[in-house]
Formats: sequence, structure tokens, C-alpha cells
Amino acid sequence: MDEFMKAAIEEAKLSLSEGGIPIGAVLERGGKIIARGHNKRVQENDPLMHAEIDCLRNAGRIGRYSACTLYSTLMPCYLCAGAVVQFNIPKVVVGESENFTGAKEFLKEHGVFITDLDLSECKTMMSDFIENNPDLWNEDIGVL
Amino acid sequence: MDEFMKAAIEEAKLSLSEGGIPIGAVLERGGKIIARGHNKRVQENDPLMHAEIDCLRNAGRIGRYSACTLYSTLMPCYLCAGAVVQFNIPKVVVGESENFTGAKEFLKEHGVFITDLDLSECKTMMSDFIENNPDLWNEDIGVL
Repeated sequence: MDEFMKAAIEEAKLSLSEGGIPIGAVLERGGKIIARGHNKRVQENDPLMHAEIDCLRNAGRIGRYSACTLYSTLMPCYLCAGAVVQFNIPKVVVGESENFTGAKEFLKEHGVFITDLDLSECKTMMSDFIENNPDLWNEDIGVL
Repeated sequence: MDEFMKAAIEEAKLSLSEGGIPIGAVLERGGKIIARGHNKRVQENDPLMHAEIDCLRNAGRIGRYSACTLYSTLMPCYLCAGAVVQFNIPKVVVGESENFTGAKEFLKEHGVFITDLDLSECKTMMSDFIENNPDLWNEDIGVL
């Protein structure tokens, strides 16, 4: 596994240790991590703080995203995929899309290049969390 | 004009008075304003703080959005439309879509009911801003 997905998984685990939803994200540019983030719905009582949104906020006003790749432990939902499309982030690498297919087709339709690493570590982390916290998970993806 | 769009325009003007991008939003439920927000890219150096995102953050963890209507002075971009679709917000009312067509078709495809009030006040406020601040506007919609 490359260092970027490894860092995204670290972020997901950090969220879990804080009592939050285990989804992490990293923004890469020029072979370096320029921002990291994780889901903070629980920690900050903020429904918008999905991992990818938190990561992009932490990156700040970087201007163009054309040389960036966004890594996430899970396929982005429409909120996060919307950010990817609006800001013209060309590449997304995900840890898995088995527990949540998210906005994969929407990203593809808009020409975003997706790599799904299909990692058992990500799949188990997410499925364990969903099994133990169904209400929290459903709240996060808006299907209450 | 109803009180909700009036409040969204107030938010847009508040942003302008703070040196920011004049876009405001309001979340309505049961005939009451439950949250307000405005674009804070400039004010907080935060590229994710579009008016609708700020508004939804201010609403907090309300659970279901099925009885909500999101008002915005401008047609939402993909980021904000992604939030609408993911959280199943059924209705969006916009002040205008002339300066920015945004993600109108995407919202429609996902069954969101859109009302475009086509208000000259909103159109002039936005076109004046874009004319005077083209770089800031292009940064906000990701077309640098």
C-alpha cells in the first residue's frame, strides 16, 4: 500500500479512537501529502464534516487542484464527490466501495479517474463500524 | 418575496459587508428558519464554506431533512447540490441561476424540486461582484 492510503487509514483509525466514524482522507500533490482529514460528525457535531470535506478544508485555499489526487478510505458520497467535481480534482483513490458505493458513477460521468484499491483492512474497519453503529452510519449518509 | 429568500439575501449582503462573496442561504422547516449561512471563503480562508454548506453546518445534526427547503441566492454548485442530494433535501429555492447555472440538471435528475425566483436583486448583486472580483469568483467555482 502506498503512503497516501496508509495515511488515510491512520486518519480513519484516529477518528475511531475519538469515538467518531472511521473514514479518513488525504490530499496528495507532487508526491507529498498536503492535507489530511477525517470524519468529524460525532466529534464536532458537524454533519458536513465528512473526511474528504475536512481534508479539503485543511488544505486551505490552494487554488488549482489539477495536480492533486484525493485519497479516501471509502468511496465518496455525493457531498464529497460534488466537491471533487466542482474543484476539478482529477483523481480519486479509494480504499473500498463495498460497504458504500457512494457517488462512483457520478464521478465517472464527470471524468474523474477512480482507483478502487479494494482493501480488506478498509472493508473490515467500515463493516464492523456499520454493524455496531447503524444509526450513526445512516445519519452520516442521510438515510435516516 | 417570502421571508426566507429575504433572509438569504440579508446573509449575502452580510457576506459582502465582511469583504466576502455575496451568496446567502437559509434552511426552512415548518415555516420557520432553522439555520442561516453565507459564503465564508474570504472571511475564514475556507474554500469549502459555500453559503449552503455554512447554512447546513449551522443547522447542526437535525437528522432527517425531508421537511426542509434550502433557500440560496444563487443556484447551488456541485458541492452544495451534492449535500442536498446526499441528505435528501427535497426542495431548493434559488434567487437566480443567470450568473451561474450550477448543478441544476444534477439536482433535477435526483428528483429535487427547484424553484428559480429569477430575482433582479440577486442577479445584480452577483453580476456586480463577479465583474469587480473575477479571480475570487473563479476560485470559488473551481475554474482557475
